Amino acid sequence: MKIIKPTLIIDKNKTIKNIQRMTQKINNSPGYIRFRPHFKTHQSTQIGEWFRESGVTAIAVSSVDMASYFAQKGWNDITIAVLVNPLEIKRIDELTEIPGVDLNLLVESPDMVTFLDRKLKRQVKLWIKIDTGYHRTGIEYDQKEKILSVAKEINKSQKFLFKGLLTHTGYSYHAPSTVQLKQIYDETVNRMNEVRDYLKANNFPEVEISFGDTPTCSVMDKFYGIDEVRCGNFVFYDVMQFYLGSCSEEDIAAAVACPIIGRYPQRSEIVIYGGAVHLSKESIKNENNQDIFGLVALPDDSTGGWGPIVKNTYVSSLTQEHGIIKTGKEWINRLNVGDILMILPVHSCLTANLLIKQDYVILNNP
Amino acid sequence: MKIIKPTLIIDKNKTIKNIQRMTQKINNSPGYIRFRPHFKTHQSTQIGEWFRESGVTAIAVSSVDMASYFAQKGWNDITIAVLVNPLEIKRIDELTEIPGVDLNLLVESPDMVTFLDRKLKRQVKLWIKIDTGYHRTGIEYDQKEKILSVAKEINKSQKFLFKGLLTHTGYSYHAPSTVQLKQIYDETVNRMNEVRDYLKANNFPEVEISFGDTPTCSVMDKFYGIDEVRCGNFVFYDVMQFYLGSCSEEDIAAAVACPIIGRYPQRSEIVIYGGAVHLSKESIKNENNQDIFGLVALPDDSTGGWGPIVKNTYVSSLTQEHGIIKTGKEWINRLNVGDILMILPVHSCLTANLLIKQDYVILNNP
Repeated sequence: MKIIKPTLIIDKNKTIKNIQRMTQKINNSPGYIRFRPHFKTHQSTQIGEWFRESGVTAIAVSSVDMASYFAQKGWNDITIAVLVNPLEIKRIDELTEIPGVDLNLLVESPDMVTFLDRKLKRQVKLWIKIDTGYHRTGIEYDQKEKILSVAKEINKSQKFLFKGLLTHTGYSYHAPSTVQLKQIYDETVNRMNEVRDYLKANNFPEVEISFGDTPTCSVMDKFYGIDEVRCGNFVFYDVMQFYLGSCSEEDIAAAVACPIIGRYPQRSEIVIYGGAVHLSKESIKNENNQDIFGLVALPDDSTGGWGPIVKNTYVSSLTQEHGIIKTGKEWINRLNVGDILMILPVHSCLTANLLIKQDYVILNNP
Repeated sequence: MKIIKPTLIIDKNKTIKNIQRMTQKINNSPGYIRFRPHFKTHQSTQIGEWFRESGVTAIAVSSVDMASYFAQKGWNDITIAVLVNPLEIKRIDELTEIPGVDLNLLVESPDMVTFLDRKLKRQVKLWIKIDTGYHRTGIEYDQKEKILSVAKEINKSQKFLFKGLLTHTGYSYHAPSTVQLKQIYDETVNRMNEVRDYLKANNFPEVEISFGDTPTCSVMDKFYGIDEVRCGNFVFYDVMQFYLGSCSEEDIAAAVACPIIGRYPQRSEIVIYGGAVHLSKESIKNENNQDIFGLVALPDDSTGGWGPIVKNTYVSSLTQEHGIIKTGKEWINRLNVGDILMILPVHSCLTANLLIKQDYVILNNP
């Protein structure tokens, strides 16, 4: 297919390799650990099938909309990995009405549990959201009595099965090194197991622990002390993960092909058709403390994919449909208006959200 | 309509007031100035009709896709206000095939003009993109001979009508004061007229000047020295424009209604269902040099709209589907999980791009 406008290219080989690597690591860990990949990254039924072929049967999603979408595509074991939005009760009922659907929801207060008990029509599984340091949502892990009060409230109702404790250590996205990422894993597993032990001592013998952000899951060689891994971003990885050290350049499985529309040798800049509505405005600091909105590779015509990251070259700013690329004289002289550049996104989840339902191509490598 | 998930609310009264204010200012300016609003902000046929009712017949868009969309909805006089992407020639031909469609394209090199002459099937109008200081695209205004060489190339072909010079002073979005915004206008108009005078002296008697970014257009009382105004963002305005001083709080015509899903009194934070996939990751520094991703208002149940901006309260971070709001104790105690907050976006163009084709409601004020 000839690219004529900004188009998300998904490299199937790399994506499947990313899926298989994580699956194997989970399978090779001691004990049974469930893989529940987060589908918010790709939001694609086709990529969902690649997970299924790797043996995955459970998924996480980040909205009721996404849960409905995947439930209709035959996914049964679904966690909506965001606190329950009480305004969507009717839509949650519609979900559990679908034969076979097994819904996992997140709560953090006894009030929400009683509300759900009163409102929901059918049985659901409940997880208590624990805050182990990210400070977005959840009960702080050291508020053990409060956690116990939620567990007790859950157990009062036949409508619920109390599954366990779920945490998201999203601050790993700002970890300064892979050593620190491993420390985040250790610390989190300790904190979650402290809570589990406390619940066990209070008549809750069966409590699972669900964990999973891409940076920590990527750097661990094996998992321990948990029952479920929930990462999602690893399916494509991206520039942010590459900078964090949680993937190599070769693991990045998504790029946006963008036509060059302007060349400005006097300021060593190239302008592409490809902007915030294609890549998102997510940025990250590079090694020189510059804000960058993407890295650049050249198309590899033999595969339809892309080659290595072009050195000393980056997307320095994005407006709605334009991107400015800073580069050196060498590249300015080799690139022309009408050429395609492959932009590796800073955050593949947001890029896929923008493009995956419209302008995307799956690259079926040979 | 009951809001149950993040939903873009467009206040029709405010939007129409914004359209009428700009239209009147253009009509009251000396001489004839064409209003060619940029439709990339709203991308909506319904809002397009409100422009039509104000007498608008010419529009700007930022992609061939958008041009096709509006051409099919009866808009004839269209400028694709981005440099020509040579890979989309076939789609440009399809556009000019639509009866009545009068297409304006942007060029900045003689090479592109000869390319278009060779490739395009039907006549188009051409504008030369001039860089008056933004340094994104265009020929620098002081490169007068280069500009003349493009104009001459255009005049060689029967396929083109040379319309004039077009600039976008996008750096106005970073102007420190409204005084500076007016200076940007003056300086730009001077620079563009210098170029026009040079072309006139070289046998190009009819050269229009097209200008138009929301910040400068908003602070000018009247326009002079130009032939066309092309702003777009003013239709909704947003927090960025409010901070720049180019609109008042009451002019902001778009907000995203978001359910509260978590309350954290100990850290004076509220978490909403509403994240980067609804608002975009555009941010701006507030008066305390904090990065903010939106301001907050309460719903006004009597109108379906929203009240004044809540003081000392802002969206401090966004992840894919979550937003964290920092506020004071007063509001923490008055707000509950399940309540709706109205988030005023930092950049309404990017927010509308995310939501306007899915989850939006036009508020038909009484």
